[in-house]
Amino acid sequence: MLGNFTYCNPTKIYFGKGAVDGLKEELPKYGKNVLLVYGGGSVKRNGIYDKVVAILKECGKEVFEDAGVMPNPTVEKLAEGVQRARAAKADLILAVGGGSVCDYAKAVSVSVNCDEDPWEKYYIRFEEPTCKIVPVGCVLTMVGTGSEMNGGSVITNRAQKLKIGHVFGEEVFPKFSCLDPEYTYTLPEYQMVAGFYDIMSHILEQYFSGTDDNTSDYLMEGLLRSLIHSARIAKEAPKNYEARSNIMWTATWALNTLVAKGKTTDWEVHMLGQAVGALTDATHGMTLAAVSMPYYRHILPYGLPKFKRYAVNVWGVDPAGKTDEQVAQEGLAAMESWMRGLGLVMNITDLGANEGMLDDLVKSTLIMQGGYKVLTPEEVRAIFKESL
Amino acid sequence: MLGNFTYCNPTKIYFGKGAVDGLKEELPKYGKNVLLVYGGGSVKRNGIYDKVVAILKECGKEVFEDAGVMPNPTVEKLAEGVQRARAAKADLILAVGGGSVCDYAKAVSVSVNCDEDPWEKYYIRFEEPTCKIVPVGCVLTMVGTGSEMNGGSVITNRAQKLKIGHVFGEEVFPKFSCLDPEYTYTLPEYQMVAGFYDIMSHILEQYFSGTDDNTSDYLMEGLLRSLIHSARIAKEAPKNYEARSNIMWTATWALNTLVAKGKTTDWEVHMLGQAVGALTDATHGMTLAAVSMPYYRHILPYGLPKFKRYAVNVWGVDPAGKTDEQVAQEGLAAMESWMRGLGLVMNITDLGANEGMLDDLVKSTLIMQGGYKVLTPEEVRAIFKESL
Repeated sequence: MLGNFTYCNPTKIYFGKGAVDGLKEELPKYGKNVLLVYGGGSVKRNGIYDKVVAILKECGKEVFEDAGVMPNPTVEKLAEGVQRARAAKADLILAVGGGSVCDYAKAVSVSVNCDEDPWEKYYIRFEEPTCKIVPVGCVLTMVGTGSEMNGGSVITNRAQKLKIGHVFGEEVFPKFSCLDPEYTYTLPEYQMVAGFYDIMSHILEQYFSGTDDNTSDYLMEGLLRSLIHSARIAKEAPKNYEARSNIMWTATWALNTLVAKGKTTDWEVHMLGQAVGALTDATHGMTLAAVSMPYYRHILPYGLPKFKRYAVNVWGVDPAGKTDEQVAQEGLAAMESWMRGLGLVMNITDLGANEGMLDDLVKSTLIMQGGYKVLTPEEVRAIFKESL
Repeated sequence: MLGNFTYCNPTKIYFGKGAVDGLKEELPKYGKNVLLVYGGGSVKRNGIYDKVVAILKECGKEVFEDAGVMPNPTVEKLAEGVQRARAAKADLILAVGGGSVCDYAKAVSVSVNCDEDPWEKYYIRFEEPTCKIVPVGCVLTMVGTGSEMNGGSVITNRAQKLKIGHVFGEEVFPKFSCLDPEYTYTLPEYQMVAGFYDIMSHILEQYFSGTDDNTSDYLMEGLLRSLIHSARIAKEAPKNYEARSNIMWTATWALNTLVAKGKTTDWEVHMLGQAVGALTDATHGMTLAAVSMPYYRHILPYGLPKFKRYAVNVWGVDPAGKTDEQVAQEGLAAMESWMRGLGLVMNITDLGANEGMLDDLVKSTLIMQGGYKVLTPEEVRAIFKESL
């Protein structure tokens, strides 16, 4: 049953080849001062930086820079960004990059006019902004996190050994995002396929929860089939525009709040994967891939009807003459075969983990309540052992 | 391939039992004067009117009434509504009803401050509003049109024998809509199942177009499967909340712009059905149902790969050992069986049409360009003849 919910997603999307030209529509809506936020040098090397700056100048903007946003943006970087935004009297924060840059821009946007410590207020106490929020726009260069069309913002506090995400309300969503699939072409294959699995995992974390049969589940099955199909093509031909554009749009809808509406969600795979990431610094999507099959095979008996449905509706398994368990297992086998075909890392040993880390992995794993089985620490250990 | 597009849907949705309480969140954002727009007496009989007025009073609003919106709102009614909105100095137009009431509210919203003739400006010249738009909110009591979360507004000019829809941009979308599935329970079965087919047709009009394989197609397959499943349940148990809530949410996403993004669309079934409606005054959804099978069987050879995909992905047809044509035909047969099971009207004779009307039906049918076959007038005639 669809539970009660509210839905609002006001982000304006410019999608397709040359989508960055959407800036020309949007920039005139904001004041003169733009804080341009980006990461390392990749946007300079691939020409996106020059393109964006040219449009900013053309629109008569004063550009202030905030470069060096790292893959896991820190509280120290956030403090620096806030200072830069204040000094610039920024009317708009323009994020050019992937999910981390966009997450960071949102963190700055709610902190510029905040009198309290943003880390404490937003990421420890999970409060909503009470100050004026500086609007954020986004030019996306990597797919996966959905940050271009949601309120998610993950910030890392190294001193406290914490990496925490706050999901802000729609007033913090980017006002606009420019999504050009060709901007994602330069990513190395390892990162590309890890991103594909991150998208897959976002959908599955929301799919494998609850016993209901609602529109959200059907929408997710559509997104999964689209992703599975296009990922196979993109693996062979990374510059296939059709595949990359479908994956980019699928990634946005996988995590822009729609498909979770009216249902419960799990997110345990992310908890397991993030524990691996914390101890090995491995690529996020690969940590999810490496723990997924042992996790799903472990919880399958507790969510058998949904795993059967997954096998039939997503993987096209023919259920005739088979037990539900056989159908469900065939679905997971098809998923594993697809994952291996993409070249995903299928065990945590290959990511640098080993048996000696098991205790620490278990300790670092948050146990979620929304899945088909609330894991015990022993089960977490068994899943990690199986993942070695 | 996903073509270039922009996407923005800022409508805030309150969904579920008691969703009308969302008004308490929204009303404080607007000024004191509210124009309450509704149709006939049904919202008074089922208590929704009293509930809404009580909340308006509780929120300290001055309520001005604009009742009597008809199923096909006319230019004369629009002129009356504009006068009422001006007299009320309306800060908000609150539509309580189905798609017609919501369509009409949008027409008033862009006409209150318009110096020109709204019919000429919006529905003949298809211009965008250049005046201040009065915000619209919606409490939905019937599903089907998607008007609660889009910019569509259909107005009828009886003198000119024209019924024309303008699809306005996002600034005309309702600011908020309250969707309570229980508000749809009182609809008679004939209207209910006609509405289900209207939703189905909205999706199919967007699905059966183009040769590409994109995320929109996969999302539509998900929506179709959800609708097919829940409609069967609702037919037997109209007060099954799960089924009615899924159908309500599916109807919204069937026509709130998302699934058409990046692709072409057809809409010929609506053109055929509307011609029938113009000559018989039959229920909209039933006119679509009555012409669909002859239309789809006629165009099947021109869009064979998509009809095959439809059979397999939506209706679960096993393609093994069959020609593409056989698979596609099996899909349409499954669709026809589902339609008959719902009790839809499957021919235009039962809607009051007859062979003598064929010439007029052909003359009244607009020929669209986006489908798998651009029909000739002879083909239109053959499809109507087949539909008798």
